[in-house]
Amino acid sequence: MISIAIDAMGGDFGPKPIIDGVIDALNVKEFNAVLVGDSKELKPLIPDEYARFITYVESSEVFSMGESATDVLKRKESSIFKAVDLVKNKECQAVVSAGHSGATMSLATLRIGRLKNVSRPAIATLMPTSANKQTLVLDVGANVDCKAEHLFQFGVMGEAYAKQIMRIQNPKIGLLSNGEEDCKGNEVTKEAFELLSKLDSFVGNVEGHQIFDGSVDVIICDGFVGNILLKTSEGVASAISKIIKQNIKKSLLTIMGALLMKGIFKNLKTQIDYDEYGGAPLLGVKDCVIISHGKSSPKAVKNAIFQALKFAGSDINKVIEDELSHFVR
Amino acid sequence: MISIAIDAMGGDFGPKPIIDGVIDALNVKEFNAVLVGDSKELKPLIPDEYARFITYVESSEVFSMGESATDVLKRKESSIFKAVDLVKNKECQAVVSAGHSGATMSLATLRIGRLKNVSRPAIATLMPTSANKQTLVLDVGANVDCKAEHLFQFGVMGEAYAKQIMRIQNPKIGLLSNGEEDCKGNEVTKEAFELLSKLDSFVGNVEGHQIFDGSVDVIICDGFVGNILLKTSEGVASAISKIIKQNIKKSLLTIMGALLMKGIFKNLKTQIDYDEYGGAPLLGVKDCVIISHGKSSPKAVKNAIFQALKFAGSDINKVIEDELSHFVR
Repeated sequence: MISIAIDAMGGDFGPKPIIDGVIDALNVKEFNAVLVGDSKELKPLIPDEYARFITYVESSEVFSMGESATDVLKRKESSIFKAVDLVKNKECQAVVSAGHSGATMSLATLRIGRLKNVSRPAIATLMPTSANKQTLVLDVGANVDCKAEHLFQFGVMGEAYAKQIMRIQNPKIGLLSNGEEDCKGNEVTKEAFELLSKLDSFVGNVEGHQIFDGSVDVIICDGFVGNILLKTSEGVASAISKIIKQNIKKSLLTIMGALLMKGIFKNLKTQIDYDEYGGAPLLGVKDCVIISHGKSSPKAVKNAIFQALKFAGSDINKVIEDELSHFVR
Repeated sequence: MISIAIDAMGGDFGPKPIIDGVIDALNVKEFNAVLVGDSKELKPLIPDEYARFITYVESSEVFSMGESATDVLKRKESSIFKAVDLVKNKECQAVVSAGHSGATMSLATLRIGRLKNVSRPAIATLMPTSANKQTLVLDVGANVDCKAEHLFQFGVMGEAYAKQIMRIQNPKIGLLSNGEEDCKGNEVTKEAFELLSKLDSFVGNVEGHQIFDGSVDVIICDGFVGNILLKTSEGVASAISKIIKQNIKKSLLTIMGALLMKGIFKNLKTQIDYDEYGGAPLLGVKDCVIISHGKSSPKAVKNAIFQALKFAGSDINKVIEDELSHFVR
């Protein structure tokens, strides 16, 4: 059975939503949940019937969101450090963390280590589309300054994720740019375009709107752009929802209309909801590291665990190393 | 009276929507419309009562969207070239072009010329927010590779636009980054942060979602990021609208609900509609150049003309030059 290390203390709302997510996941799949945290605080949250799937690793310290990521290496008693080290020591096959994402990345890179020929691990996230499928976007925040070869490696990692985890036989990989034409791009993406052209699955430059129309499966960008597009997308969705709500209240008829359409808005929420994916894999490190939002709901934690199970049960890391070895000079 | 040069031939759909937009604008404001194009084609589109506000400059050539921007300098008979030259020669105070935007930029920069101490003109665009105001974002496409000093100049230009055109006394200027903290950013934006700190109106780093919540008035980014965030926003809005439409059709009740909410969706469309702004000013060139979308509707053309009138009647260019002169070493 796959064992998953879970930092039970690191989320913004304490252990409760994380534990609830673990229980929801256990209702659907079998796995060993290794909860890292203060067992005195955690045990009362867990009904007896789940006890046999759960073990505890004691940790009394929490690495807080306000601390500087690199300081985590000295915080060996923190739940996040101990959770990552369970994977490093091969006691677990995956770690899910809703704690400090920078710290999780630092620990993953420096304690677990990078895959062969990967210079920079990248955070990959699934984005909703109107085409009933998802688009994988990477990097969405791990590396703000990227060289062309980093973007190329992201392409190889994204391709492997699409094939091994999303189960797309012939994925389409696009490079995010300021126009679809081959000549478009900034200095770095133009150079990355040349490198990525070596991949059979590379379809060339893509534009921002293609993240949401399902026309490609994987989109490559640096972590600065990735972070901005993620937050821009959230901002648009939230502004639209606010404007609709402001206007609904203006008349009884529209309130009735909104009630009749309630199911649709719920559907929409499901379709574009972060909780549906629940976590972003850190690609390029040995083993499996899933980074969840600090504000993760139980549903998000559950889905992050499902992601971890899929990842840990796949050959993705071997595929990435094999593929990259072809391109080493 | 202000004279506005209008490239009547350059849009994707020919002269008709452009002429209709000019007429709609003339119904609201007085100005001289100088239409550049084939007058034999244009005259039949214009009702007699508007004739006295319209003059023609003959041009038989159209610079097409597929051509390379820099080639436009050799196309002296094209409508876009002649329209820009009307401003260069002081026959008009502004030019509105729905033609090749790269060509318009090249002509504006090389024929009209840059303001003193401006290294790179930038395209500024107004974005809708949920707060009943707009956010100005620049650069959204003129400069894919920017240095810190260019971003600083965009800050000065954006501040001037906010004060002179948007009539905001104490505008807030933010630098788009991957986090609000001062330490966030890539190499270039970190350096730009230092430079922008010299401006009283600079409020620090802002995140993608702040484009749409009205928390700042002006957001600075390079043209690569600006283009991506523009198209990403369009993509999100269009995906949400598609998903809602797909779901409405599934039941009679939701169809009824949608009918009751029709006004709201229309309101939403107005509030987030590009046509409401109609054009993006190219800041940093002498005089006034408004760049409109090739697919501009009459409404977009009308609003682009209103923008041009406001711009041409303001002191913005003097303010930009004065402000920049304080910072020249």
